[in-house]
This record gives sequence, structure tokens and C-alpha cells, in this order.
Amino acid sequence: MKPIKVAVVGASGYSGQELIRILMRHPGVELVCVTSRQLAGQTIAEVHPRFQHHRFADVKFTASDAEAVAASGAKIAFLALPHGLAHEYAKPLLERGLKVIDLSADFRLKDPAVFEEFYGEKHLAPDLLGQSVYGLPEVYRREIAASDLIASPGCYPTSILLPLIPLLREKVVEPAGIIVASMSGVSGAGRKVAVDYLYCECNESARAYGAPKHRHLSEIEQELSFAAGVPVVISFTPHLIPVNRGIVSTISAMLVPGKEKEIGPVLEATYKDEPFVRLQGPKGSADTKNVAFTNYIDITWRHDPRTGRALLMSAEDNLVKGASGQAVQSLNILCGWPETTGL
Amino acid sequence: MKPIKVAVVGASGYSGQELIRILMRHPGVELVCVTSRQLAGQTIAEVHPRFQHHRFADVKFTASDAEAVAASGAKIAFLALPHGLAHEYAKPLLERGLKVIDLSADFRLKDPAVFEEFYGEKHLAPDLLGQSVYGLPEVYRREIAASDLIASPGCYPTSILLPLIPLLREKVVEPAGIIVASMSGVSGAGRKVAVDYLYCECNESARAYGAPKHRHLSEIEQELSFAAGVPVVISFTPHLIPVNRGIVSTISAMLVPGKEKEIGPVLEATYKDEPFVRLQGPKGSADTKNVAFTNYIDITWRHDPRTGRALLMSAEDNLVKGASGQAVQSLNILCGWPETTGL
Amino acid sequence: MKPIKVAVVGASGYSGQELIRILMRHPGVELVCVTSRQLAGQTIAEVHPRFQHHRFADVKFTASDAEAVAASGAKIAFLALPHGLAHEYAKPLLERGLKVIDLSADFRLKDPAVFEEFYGEKHLAPDLLGQSVYGLPEVYRREIAASDLIASPGCYPTSILLPLIPLLREKVVEPAGIIVASMSGVSGAGRKVAVDYLYCECNESARAYGAPKHRHLSEIEQELSFAAGVPVVISFTPHLIPVNRGIVSTISAMLVPGKEKEIGPVLEATYKDEPFVRLQGPKGSADTKNVAFTNYIDITWRHDPRTGRALLMSAEDNLVKGASGQAVQSLNILCGWPETTGL
Amino acid sequence: MKPIKVAVVGASGYSGQELIRILMRHPGVELVCVTSRQLAGQTIAEVHPRFQHHRFADVKFTASDAEAVAASGAKIAFLALPHGLAHEYAKPLLERGLKVIDLSADFRLKDPAVFEEFYGEKHLAPDLLGQSVYGLPEVYRREIAASDLIASPGCYPTSILLPLIPLLREKVVEPAGIIVASMSGVSGAGRKVAVDYLYCECNESARAYGAPKHRHLSEIEQELSFAAGVPVVISFTPHLIPVNRGIVSTISAMLVPGKEKEIGPVLEATYKDEPFVRLQGPKGSADTKNVAFTNYIDITWRHDPRTGRALLMSAEDNLVKGASGQAVQSLNILCGWPETTGL
Repeated sequence: MKPIKVAVVGASGYSGQELIRILMRHPGVELVCVTSRQLAGQTIAEVHPRFQHHRFADVKFTASDAEAVAASGAKIAFLALPHGLAHEYAKPLLERGLKVIDLSADFRLKDPAVFEEFYGEKHLAPDLLGQSVYGLPEVYRREIAASDLIASPGCYPTSILLPLIPLLREKVVEPAGIIVASMSGVSGAGRKVAVDYLYCECNESARAYGAPKHRHLSEIEQELSFAAGVPVVISFTPHLIPVNRGIVSTISAMLVPGKEKEIGPVLEATYKDEPFVRLQGPKGSADTKNVAFTNYIDITWRHDPRTGRALLMSAEDNLVKGASGQAVQSLNILCGWPETTGL
Repeated sequence: MKPIKVAVVGASGYSGQELIRILMRHPGVELVCVTSRQLAGQTIAEVHPRFQHHRFADVKFTASDAEAVAASGAKIAFLALPHGLAHEYAKPLLERGLKVIDLSADFRLKDPAVFEEFYGEKHLAPDLLGQSVYGLPEVYRREIAASDLIASPGCYPTSILLPLIPLLREKVVEPAGIIVASMSGVSGAGRKVAVDYLYCECNESARAYGAPKHRHLSEIEQELSFAAGVPVVISFTPHLIPVNRGIVSTISAMLVPGKEKEIGPVLEATYKDEPFVRLQGPKGSADTKNVAFTNYIDITWRHDPRTGRALLMSAEDNLVKGASGQAVQSLNILCGWPETTGL
Repeated sequence: MKPIKVAVVGASGYSGQELIRILMRHPGVELVCVTSRQLAGQTIAEVHPRFQHHRFADVKFTASDAEAVAASGAKIAFLALPHGLAHEYAKPLLERGLKVIDLSADFRLKDPAVFEEFYGEKHLAPDLLGQSVYGLPEVYRREIAASDLIASPGCYPTSILLPLIPLLREKVVEPAGIIVASMSGVSGAGRKVAVDYLYCECNESARAYGAPKHRHLSEIEQELSFAAGVPVVISFTPHLIPVNRGIVSTISAMLVPGKEKEIGPVLEATYKDEPFVRLQGPKGSADTKNVAFTNYIDITWRHDPRTGRALLMSAEDNLVKGASGQAVQSLNILCGWPETTGL
Repeated sequence: MKPIKVAVVGASGYSGQELIRILMRHPGVELVCVTSRQLAGQTIAEVHPRFQHHRFADVKFTASDAEAVAASGAKIAFLALPHGLAHEYAKPLLERGLKVIDLSADFRLKDPAVFEEFYGEKHLAPDLLGQSVYGLPEVYRREIAASDLIASPGCYPTSILLPLIPLLREKVVEPAGIIVASMSGVSGAGRKVAVDYLYCECNESARAYGAPKHRHLSEIEQELSFAAGVPVVISFTPHLIPVNRGIVSTISAMLVPGKEKEIGPVLEATYKDEPFVRLQGPKGSADTKNVAFTNYIDITWRHDPRTGRALLMSAEDNLVKGASGQAVQSLNILCGWPETTGL
């Protein structure tokens, strides 16, 4: 495995930090460039003492311009920027021949009007939307392999799409009346310095937020609609809970009559060879502690004969399968390596 | 206010402990008897060092038999026992002229067959079920005042019934298709010594459990059906999250067409004079940290025009409004005191 | 008890919020004024939803100038400001006839040079230092009663002084060689919006900070020196641990030979009538969870014959006995009320 | 690297589980045997759902007798048993030609009388004590390489010995008057099912325990005495804090006059080539979150001129460098592999 040179653009937040953590153990990469406006000039080890003694600990943060990233020799750039910023970085990087794996929401939606509706700002590079691939390997593996602009999915969407897509495709559950409640660890909010995310405001606290129209709904519904073949509109309520890492999503969907026994078989047929999807069966538990610091997503399910509904429960680490691990999974596909490399 | 003598039967768990905490500051009671099989002979302060220097700290635990409780002079007995045990304690206490406020599930269901279905054992005192009152003061205030056997509601039911009952009564939401996801702090599981509730198994963990047929469903559906005037069957998924105290319930219900604007007005009309129900409005947040250690329940709501659904979110302290505080609220009603006394 | 009008100057942080929480249940006060530069114009309930439905919930925040505070009719003002700001507020309030209970460090030190050494800035009202009383009721009860400027002690100092002062006074332990390690909950850092206090930076983290010369050392050593009658210099290492509330201090001091058996008797003689000091004996435990949300300090001790040292361990709620509860204790003394009023 | 077959005896607790986690990623081992009385017959994945899809997930637990362990073909056995049990397992395993890495306290002490004093029971295999090596690689690397019975150190001892040993050896600090306060995550107590370790008893709690004569003192003092060349007796107070993983130790020692500037240089000279000791310098921070899930120990220090003392602070993951990671480090030494293999 000849190492490929990679860059991480915007490496000061939790996803960027997690990406560095994963890449340090990845046998196929050489991290040649990390960028951050505020941290330029400091080494990774200085900024993140936890990375002292690790590989790449001495790489210095640089400013975030495309020219500098390209000059580093990087062939692939991860963008770990807040939404709205990746717009401007992707094009010049692509033009300089780099491939781009974007962890933000900027290239996930196919329709710029939906972007504008949910993110409240105009899309600045709508011409790239046709070119980008939604980087959910279990669904778009082949497209990822052939792409140079991968829009890696968000944390909530991954936890909701993987359980639901096969059941919608196979018409086991109805596309109407899907209700989702998700619980996320605080790292999902990023490393934003705001009162709401102070320790004493989150500890011993649980609360819903962002309902009924959280931004992630846009990509969730886009992908569910593709799977169902009809427009899907869902109810989605995210909650903030006091854990560092982890998302649990609890999904309720009406069963198509007569398909009550198909939940397990369809999920098993879809995911039996997937390295990162673990099915816990109809009596298992999807618990964030079992997936923390891994790229796994655990899925379990129940049939509720009293209501005619399927109950799907998933757990993932929002920073790994929900962000940086999934992005590295796409890197592996892109480079033709075994998908579990370094994960 | 002439103090009334009270007993707490089964005071070793978290609800019992919380009951003691509240009664210690209550100006209307004298705690004359606390019982526990294992702790008999020790004082409250010895068992719970946190209660040293408090009123009643020197009261000694005694065995749990009805004779001893009656002999203590208590006029009202709280039962803080696991379900299945209150059956045998209620009757002899009632026969000796005590009033009983039961915190367990034993007298909440009107139909002994439903008890048997959900609790997996026969009801041992079905004759008392007609006599007991469901102790939700906001709904059954008048009946509580006149009763001598009050079945104080469970923690999940309180958080779900208070938001939903007015909307079902006033036909603002449909009785069909109600989906609830609740998140509970670990004290909700009681002080049971089991691997599942060890610190390291709960911390940095979130997981659903008990779905799709949690025991509390039986009383929730009973009371929702009374409110709606038709049988109500709901989906309910409880989750365990790493906080000590607190429940958040997130409820999704179909709006009756044309009633989209009625959510707020109906809740406000119902609860405007209630001392312990706080409406946070259509933009507020129901956060466990705002109600911890209080008898409040906070309720907020959203209208989701995309799905035609109402979203209701409530937060309460599972040990206070969800258990011991609510029981004391019933005590206040029973004694004719202001309902907020000692709370 | 005729209510006295009080003001809280700087009520946006955690101490200010806790002061409001306590005063709301205090039968002797009327809260007529709360101030905060950023929050002026909003009510307490709007700023802190947890205080909805409470007494004083509708009091509006005003700007923080002394004129406005005096105009509110307040007779006593609590200052819950960062250190360095109380300097300028105390004098004009005193001149307008108010009594001042200051929760900051500004008036705790008798020597302005020590203030300058430890706080890195000049004291702006050194003339008031002679007038102020160190508001530790268990030591300075009589002086507090007669004072109009009370410097309420810090959280670490309270937890260290109460166990040590009697033993130094009675020459049970040596003044030299005292070593203290303290662990504080994150609310001790205030409601400062900084990366260090984000949830994900504090959860699953424990770390020492501020050693070897934390600011609180200055007042600790001042008071220990008064007790010992000779200058006392100690080692003090504070740690930040992931709890909201609570300080545990573990103190090691050389025993004066022959005084090994005096630890318990001296502590008991000193504190037997103190309402808020609870002695847990030589086998007890000082646990933050037993004192959270109360004004108690729990103290336990050990004799270590292997090293000839006494081990003293204390636990308190840093926001109550370590800040706002203690300030209200001083208020009660000042007003001639039972010291436990409202606590 | 030809894989070597290994066994884990007693793999149901947290150390055993962590050992499995590490060995699953270790390129040099084949895990052929895991034992547990209660779990016999179940696979690793069934017992620990978090290990599904991992290497060795299908290995079945067997009973714990030496015969079965030897029959598995294992050449090296890790003992992850409570103290007192390794006594009986070590000898038959050694007789069957296996090498033994014991994670319990059974073979750490050279003097069986000290074992009896601190553990309250007779040592059952005192003849093996001369043969065992204290498995602290940074101190006994050469001896470990040549041994067949390695007594891997405890979590507290590792965090205290590594900072202190070089300074005692080089006479930078005095052997008398050393005071240590340590804070440990709850996994340090093992997976014991007891009220004290329930979530609600540990969360929002901090408390000292086990002072003044914790069992680990015996091995700490043994090794410090070897380093100092004179008997060393220290004060040691462990505390339980609400984190899953991590120990912080804060050590205060009198500086030998004139050696104030030697702390840093001596530590740097000792540890500059050590892969798992990271020196954070005289201004750094030793924070459990930086070492969690790694085999690193972070050490920082301060000189306190006011007291003439050195302050040493260390952080490690109690389950990794404090237990299973350190045991695997010894395995690597034993097998002649790079010491960081699989860590």
C-alpha cells in the first residue's frame, strides 16, 4: 500500500480532530497538511496534547487557502468546515486536481433550492451539485469509487437512513407516517463556544431542539425519497443528551400489511456482508457505548402488533460512522483499499 | 396547620428516599414510621448520611407489617414498594383506618385483566381497584380529595398524560397514531443492584429498552382512552440516558384538520391555574435541568405543517412530579392544604 | 419576620443564579432588584426558565449602577460579581446606607499587597479593607452581626478552613507541612464561555489546574495564620472534575506528637452546635452527593499512625456553603434571624 | 511476526474486557482461550455485544481450570482475576510450560508478610514470589524479558511510581514526607455489582475512600523504597470520581535543597526514549481525557518555591496503562516485539 498524501482543511473542531485521530493509525495515508485560520503555525501536538507522540504530531497547521493545500502535495482533501464554507474551497481544490471528501452539508443536496430553504443561504457552487456523490458507502459504494467530490453524510442522517432505506426499497414499511426521535452526544454540536454547550448546561440535562425542521431533514428526506421511489416527508426530533459521543435513533414506521415478518430478513439480506453494519436482531439493544470510538452502526428492531408498526433502533458514534470514520471509509473506497483499512 | 402523622412503607429505594427528603421540609406532617425489611433498627441518618441534621433524622426503620405501621399512630401511609407488594399492604392498612397513597403500579389499573397482561401476575386485591383513584391531581383533584386509596401515577405516564389529555378531550389531536419517545434518568430504574445500572454501564451510554410493550403503557392508554372517549393505543419507546433525575417525553400526534392553532390555547386554558404545570409556549424548551428537584412539569409544543402533526415535549423530575412530589401533592389535597405545601 | 428588601448585583452567573434560588424560598426577604449589564430589561423567568412560577420570577434585571440599586429600596446588596468589580460597587452602596455582602474576593484580604500579589492588580478601595469582615459564620459570627461589609469566603477556602482552624487553634496539628488536594465541580469556574468549560472538554476528564499558586491560597493562608498564631504556608492543588456542584478537599497535616486522639474531640467541641457543620466521625465519608443543594459541610477524618499525619476530608456544595448559601447565612446573622432561615 | 497463542483467564470484568479489546487489534497474537466460571459456553460476542464483528468474536468462554487453558495451546496466559485467586492458577500453568502475566496483586509483593498485612489473607504460593517480576516496563524491562511470571502493576501504583522513581533515585526529592492524592474513574472498582457503584451513587459524587491504608500502598512503598535505597512510607488518598476511565495522581514531595531545577532534566533524561511516557513540561496539564483508551501516561510538574516542594501530576487510563495495556506491553517485551505493537 503506497501511502497517499492527504490534507485536512479545518482541523480545529471535533470532526477534524477525530479525522486526525483516525488518519494517524491509517497505514495508507501520509497527512501532509492540516489547516485552520486561528491555529496556523502550531503543530498538531501543541494544539491537541492528546496527539503527542503520535504519527504526524509535528505537522504544522497552515492557513486554509487552496493554493497552500495543493502545494502540500496532497492528492485528497478532507473538508471539515462548517456548512457554507466548503462551497468556496471545493472548486479551487478540484481544479488543482485534488479529490475532495467534504464532511459538511454543502454538497449533499441535489437541489439548490432545498439547500436554500433549509440552510437559509444561497448555494454558491450549484454547478458542483450534479457532480457530487452522497457518501454513504452502503448505498453509493460504486458511485463513490468513481467520484472526485464526495459529500459525506451527517450524523443523524446516517443513523436514520441505514435502517430505513432497505425497508422502503423493499416496501416493507410505508413511506408515510415515519416518526424519528434521535438523541445525540454533545460533540454533535461541534466545538462551538456558546453558553448552551457549557458543561453545567449539558450535564444533568436532556432536551429536544431544532424541531420540527432540523437542517438534516433535507438530506434524510432526499435519500428516503430515492429509496421509496416517492416523496417521503418525516417527523424528526433531535435531542441533546449528556454523553460525549454517540447517537441513538428510534424510528417508528407503519408496516405494509403482510410484511410484519420481513423486517429482519430484508435487513439481513442487505447488510450481511457489510463490515460496519451490525444487526442485533429482534431482541438486541442498540447502545451508544457499544459503538463509541468505532465505525460500526448497530441496528435492532421490533414488531409492534398492537399498532402495526415497525420499531427500528440504531446506535453509532456521531464522530466516527456519523462523520470522520465514514469519510475515511469513502477514502478507502476511492483508493481501492479494503474498506476497513485503518478503521 | 396541625401536623398529621404519616408513615413511609418501603423507604430504602430512591422514591422512598425522595419522599423522606420532601416530608422533612413539609410543615404539615410528622414522619412517625419508616419501614424496610433490611434496614430495621437503623435510623434514617445512619442509612442516608445526607439526612443527618434534618428533621426526622433519628426516626428508626422498622419492619414493614401493617400492625406496626398502625401502631405508630400514622394516619396516612405512603407505599414506596415494588409493584406486586402493595397489594398485600393496602388492605390491612385501610382496615385499620389509615389512608393509603401508593406509589407503585398496583392500584392504577381499573381492569385486573390488564394488570395481569402487563405485569405477568394475578392481581391480589381486585376488589380494591374500584375504590382506588388515579392520583393525577390535575385530572382527578376532586376524586383524590374524597378517596382513601390513591394510586399515584408513574413517571413516564405523568410526562405523557399531562400534555395529551387536554388535546384529546378537546379533539385537537387524533386518538390514533400517537408516537412517544421518552428519555429517563437512571434513578427511574430504582436502586436495583444489577450490572445494567452500574456507573460504567450507564455513563456514556444511551439505549432504548422495554419496547414495544413497556408496563407503563397500560396506565397511559387507560387514561388517554378516558380522555378521548375511545380506545387509544399508542407507540411508546423509553430510553435510558446518563442523568440522575429527569424524564423528557417527546410526543407526536396527528392534528385534527383545522385545529392547528388550538394546541396552545387549549393547554393554556387547561393549565393556567395549575401550580405545577409550566407552559413554555410554542418556542420554548422542556429541559430536565429546569425541573430537577422540583414538582414542576414543563411543557412546550410545535406545529409541524409539513406532516400535519403536533409535537409535544415535556420535562419533569421522575422522582418528584414523576413519583414522590406528586404523592405529596395528593397528600396536600387529601388534607385540604394548599397544594404547593412543602413542594 | 418583617421582610427586608435585598438586591443582587451581577445575577447572571452561577452564584447569582443560586442566590436567587435560595432567596426565592427565604421567608425574610423581598428581592427588589437584580442587575446585569447584558440582561437589563428581561425578567428573571425569561433569563432563567427554571424560575418560572417562583416568587420574584417577574422582577426585571436592571443596569448595575449604585444609584439604581439604592433607588430600588434595597437595604442589603449581595455582590455576585467577578473579582475586581466589587471594588467600585461597594463604596457608593455603603455611602447610600446599604449593607453589602460581597461574594467576590475583593474584600477578603486584609493586606492590599497580598491582593495585588495574588490577583495581579491594584486594590481600588484599600480603605475599606479594615472595615470588612471575613464572612465565615462559624469563625466570625459576632463580627458579621456588627458589620456592614461582609466578604463572603470562597468555595475552596471554606472547605479547607473549617476542618483546619480548630485543629490549628488547639495545636493538634502542626502549622508547617500542610498539603491540600481539592476537587471541584465545573460550576466553580463560573458561567464563563470558554473552550475549557465546554461539555466535551470536562466530561470524562479530570485535571489539576492553577497550582502551585491558586488565588484562593491568599485568603486560606491568611485565615490559617490567624488561627495558628504563626504564619502558615500550605501546598494547595485544585482539580476540576466532571460534576456540576461540589467540592471535596483532602487535607494532610502533621499531628503534634501526643495529640493523635484529639482530632475528633476538638472538632466535636467546636462544631457540636453548628447547624451547618456535620461531623461524619473517623470512619465516615465526605461525599459531594450528600451535600449538594444544601448549606452543609461534611467533615470526616483519619489518623495515619504510619506517617504521623491527620487526614481531614470535607465536602460541600461549592455554590451553597461555598458561595450563596454562606452569604445568606451571613444575611441571617446580620438580620438577627435564626441562622438556618431559608437554608 | 508469527502469532503466539494466548489465553485470558477471568475475562468477565473490565480489565479482562479491555485485554480482549487490545488483543483483537494485536497483530502478534491469536486468542485461543477465554475463561469465566459464569460465562462458560457463550461466545465473546454474545457476552460483549461491542465485540461483534471483531476478530476472536466467536471464541467461546470455557471454565477456568489450568488443564483446559493448557489444552487450548496457549503459550502465554493473562490472569485477570480478583486478588487471591491468581495464587492457585499461576503454579499449574507454569508447570505446564505457560508463561503467566498476572494483572492481580498476588505476585507483586516480595514479602509474603506484607501481602498478609495488606490483603488480610495468607499468601498461598510464597515460593513463587522470588520468581515473579514487577511488570513495570520502564523500570524492569530487562527482567520482564527473561521472566515467566510477570506481576503487572496496579493502576494507582503505575501513576505514582513513574513520576517518583527517577526523582528518588537521583535524590532530587526527599524520601520522607511524600503525600499523594489520586482520583480514579469508576471502572477502577471493577465490575462489582454493589450499591456503591450504581450509576446514581457515583454520578454527581466525589469522595475519598480506602484511606489511610489502601492495599496498593504496599506495592507503591516497596518500589519507592527500592528506588530510594531507604524505606519509604507515604500518605496516599484515593478518590472515586464520575468518569469511566482515568486516574489523575497529584504528588507532593520535598525537594532536596539545591535540586529545584533538576525535576525536568531528570524526568527527561529518564523517559526521553520511552514510547508511552509523555512529559508535558513544567506548564503542561495531565488530563485523563488526553490518555483515555491509550497506553500513555502523561506527566507534568511544578516547583513551588513557597513550600520547597515539587508537585508531580500524572494521568493515565486505569484500564490501559494502569492494567491491560501495560500487561500487553510486557507481552511485547516477552516476545521480543516492538514494545508499541498493538498498543
